[in-house]
Amino acid sequence: MTEPENFMQRAIELARQGMNQGAGGPFGAVVVKDGVIVGEGHNQVVGTHDPTAHGEVTAIRDACKNMKSFSLEGCEIYTTGQPCPMCLGAILWARIEKIYYGFRIEDAAAIGFDDTEFFRQMQLPADQRLVPAQELCREEALQLANDYLLIPNRRHY
Amino acid sequence: MTEPENFMQRAIELARQGMNQGAGGPFGAVVVKDGVIVGEGHNQVVGTHDPTAHGEVTAIRDACKNMKSFSLEGCEIYTTGQPCPMCLGAILWARIEKIYYGFRIEDAAAIGFDDTEFFRQMQLPADQRLVPAQELCREEALQLANDYLLIPNRRHY
Repeated sequence: MTEPENFMQRAIELARQGMNQGAGGPFGAVVVKDGVIVGEGHNQVVGTHDPTAHGEVTAIRDACKNMKSFSLEGCEIYTTGQPCPMCLGAILWARIEKIYYGFRIEDAAAIGFDDTEFFRQMQLPADQRLVPAQELCREEALQLANDYLLIPNRRHY
Repeated sequence: MTEPENFMQRAIELARQGMNQGAGGPFGAVVVKDGVIVGEGHNQVVGTHDPTAHGEVTAIRDACKNMKSFSLEGCEIYTTGQPCPMCLGAILWARIEKIYYGFRIEDAAAIGFDDTEFFRQMQLPADQRLVPAQELCREEALQLANDYLLIPNRRHY
């Protein structure tokens, strides 16, 4: 039987390969369903010029591609570092049911990553965040949103 | 001169095309630098089975690909809906400097999306969130994190 530690070791191995290749930071992840790995990934921010290519996001995208589904209900994710807000959001949208992580948000901060500050941003009211946000064309955008409800057979996600 | 409204109208147009094709929800986005669109996208969660393919994420990925850079410093994003936590995280990691949005988080909730609940999740202590998270193999993961610091010429992001 495969133990949780084995899945985490695979995530660490993926992270190590990625960072040694210059792909990005020390972040790897695997998605597991019913004791079997269904998706893998590691950070590729530097290698692919993609700031969204964190370990968890790449593993989720891989798993969804393999399962031909935007839902990872019934899956767990093993990730070398506690998820940042972007990755936690991705985990929630993917409907993943459990997270195993190696080092903590504050450990990521200690090696130079912004996860702690970004969690703080999420907790501030929108008008006090680092990146200013301005409402624009709300009426027209609301028309779009309402038109969405009229689309027949739309898939809920 | 291109006005902010024109960029938002382009985002709305992208969103409308996407939702009418069955690609996903009513979400489109454009990334703008110095008054010029450098990246575009719309929600593709359903069409590509990718729960991370929100309008903002696809536009950021497109812009970064076009600019061959993981940093969108000096850029603005125009998005039909106020960003969810995943997309706000992506905007922060991409170093985008301003957000223009059409409809609000609560408007997205009104048409069936979970953004409000997901923001609430970010604000809870980790042990009270919807998805349980468990620490595993911290020592080994910390070794990985510390080894990262020894990599010569690593790119900070």
